Amino acid sequence: MEALSVCVVGAGMAGLSALKNSLQSNLNATCFEQSTHLGGTWFYQEEQDVAFGENVHSSMYRDLRTNLPKEIMGYLDFTYSKQSKESFISSDEVLKFLNSYADHFHLRDHIKFQHKVLRIRPYKNKWEVLVSHNISHRCKQHLFDRVFVCNGHYTKPQYPKTVGMSCYKGIQMHSHLYRTQDKFKAQKVLIIGAGPSGIDLTNHISKVANCVYLSHHLSKKPNTDFMRNVIQKPNVKQFIETGAIFEDNSSEEFDIVVYCTGYQYSFPFLSSECGIFVHNNHVQPLYKHCININYPTMAIIGLPYAVIPSQVFDLQVRFSLKFFKNELKLPSREDMLTEMEKDNEERQKDGLRERDAHRMGAKQVSK
Amino acid sequence: MEALSVCVVGAGMAGLSALKNSLQSNLNATCFEQSTHLGGTWFYQEEQDVAFGENVHSSMYRDLRTNLPKEIMGYLDFTYSKQSKESFISSDEVLKFLNSYADHFHLRDHIKFQHKVLRIRPYKNKWEVLVSHNISHRCKQHLFDRVFVCNGHYTKPQYPKTVGMSCYKGIQMHSHLYRTQDKFKAQKVLIIGAGPSGIDLTNHISKVANCVYLSHHLSKKPNTDFMRNVIQKPNVKQFIETGAIFEDNSSEEFDIVVYCTGYQYSFPFLSSECGIFVHNNHVQPLYKHCININYPTMAIIGLPYAVIPSQVFDLQVRFSLKFFKNELKLPSREDMLTEMEKDNEERQKDGLRERDAHRMGAKQVSK
Repeated sequence: MEALSVCVVGAGMAGLSALKNSLQSNLNATCFEQSTHLGGTWFYQEEQDVAFGENVHSSMYRDLRTNLPKEIMGYLDFTYSKQSKESFISSDEVLKFLNSYADHFHLRDHIKFQHKVLRIRPYKNKWEVLVSHNISHRCKQHLFDRVFVCNGHYTKPQYPKTVGMSCYKGIQMHSHLYRTQDKFKAQKVLIIGAGPSGIDLTNHISKVANCVYLSHHLSKKPNTDFMRNVIQKPNVKQFIETGAIFEDNSSEEFDIVVYCTGYQYSFPFLSSECGIFVHNNHVQPLYKHCININYPTMAIIGLPYAVIPSQVFDLQVRFSLKFFKNELKLPSREDMLTEMEKDNEERQKDGLRERDAHRMGAKQVSK
Repeated sequence: MEALSVCVVGAGMAGLSALKNSLQSNLNATCFEQSTHLGGTWFYQEEQDVAFGENVHSSMYRDLRTNLPKEIMGYLDFTYSKQSKESFISSDEVLKFLNSYADHFHLRDHIKFQHKVLRIRPYKNKWEVLVSHNISHRCKQHLFDRVFVCNGHYTKPQYPKTVGMSCYKGIQMHSHLYRTQDKFKAQKVLIIGAGPSGIDLTNHISKVANCVYLSHHLSKKPNTDFMRNVIQKPNVKQFIETGAIFEDNSSEEFDIVVYCTGYQYSFPFLSSECGIFVHNNHVQPLYKHCININYPTMAIIGLPYAVIPSQVFDLQVRFSLKFFKNELKLPSREDMLTEMEKDNEERQKDGLRERDAHRMGAKQVSK
């Protein structure tokens, strides 16, 4: 019997795991990567390359260091070298690691660089994948038996809807396009959001800025020693031409706003026929946050956050392959939908909002 | 102010109305048509041209005559010539009419033939439309302010799920691919479904076939004088190698099965990001069966069936244009969703199934 063919979309941290594990399972795997390089969001590029009308893919900034120690950032069967003593490493070191993973498992021959997946849809019991080449712009049709969607989820910025945003005359940007602190020199800056990037950017920018207002709704102040020019503020109530009024009715003036307000899951290349939709940042219907319940020969890898990424990706890929190869049988469609609903209800009981549908935290560890 | 740009997908009966009315409204309209000709499903082609891995578009067969009189088949402002006395006309005459409509309103200059729309998605407050040329296969990105989706709905066959379909050794085909009765000469034929095409094909095929079994679940026999070699049967209970067992436990042998079991709405080019999904042949969420509630700058024309098509298309287009041009304001998203739900509930009360969500019949006339 001919080996099943597998399409992997994207050669980032998740796509490399999908490719490597598919090949090791003797499947006929091809990875399409829209850029010239592997590594996905871990590839730092100063210039914001807008290729083929697309959004900038990576959100990487120059001085990022990982917020997990490298000791747990490896794959299940390929870990970081222990030579360096540093645990919290630069994006460059992560990228080097991903390249050595690709080399070690001979993945490069199976990656088609500069190939952008335009559309995927079910077609005659297979998946039709339309792919265009970045230079010729020629579009080609491919057919596959299985699909791993690994396109990352740090590409489409999420903005808040705050009164007066369009009145404000200063610069507004999303952390997605932040690269270095250079242009913040001597500026007054408002940073919105105190998640990982909000706190990290506050630290970077406050080194050169005149002052940084950090606006957030955390009831407890972040556990960070900020510079003295950092002033914490509650949520913005309303923007005005020169600044903002906050929920405590204080107001400040500033030159730049940086929205560190997260990202939206986005699958522009999935045809509406794939049966996947995103509502309020909840990608559905998925079994165990990865297998497409409507077409279980497709899995989306890497949606869960507040996780140990590479390990979760590896586990999701191995789990999906069991079903892709018919070694395990999935529950019925109805049972999978019921389980998804149950998971949602539990999350609601735990006080999570719908947009936290893929947040794991403690949930990533089985009880 | 620059005129709004409008993309029309498809140059069939609905697309031509969308194009003509958009141009008359002084909008900057472009129609993309994947084939070399206008007319959509009304273009009869004996050979089943499978272009670019696509399904055959048209379901037209050689001897079709319209089941509505030509006197009501024209557009609201452009009707059929009264020269011919015949009311029930051939597909060729409909095609001629559509061509004369295009000529009269100078539509051809605005139609890009052999341009296939691969993907549409919302992009920076516009619509990104990826279009590939059939010969060069080059893919180009276009941006539009408004979109009319007019791709027809007689392309993706709907099959029943009957026990034993894969055991049956004879030929199985869908009415979508029926062209002439030639290959049915002296054959025993089973036709499934007694909708318009089931009845019409029974009449055509029984002229040359040995016999035709017409299987359907209508409680009242169709009001048609069939040939004497037509035998009506209830639903198939189960297929066997050489034929089928019916629900009345009678069984018959036959050489060919023709499924006249209808079509599925299909929008392969709509990205999952357009917010449109199809569940059980119900396209949603739509306001008044045409405006995309999630992105009201997109309208899908021509979903309703059991209607007077061209007139309904014209009305849907004119209705949508009122909102596209901001001459009228839509209700709130919530109110539109509520109205859609109400329409569904009424349909359920009337005994319609979910898959009849776009059936109009008497509903097309306002009370």
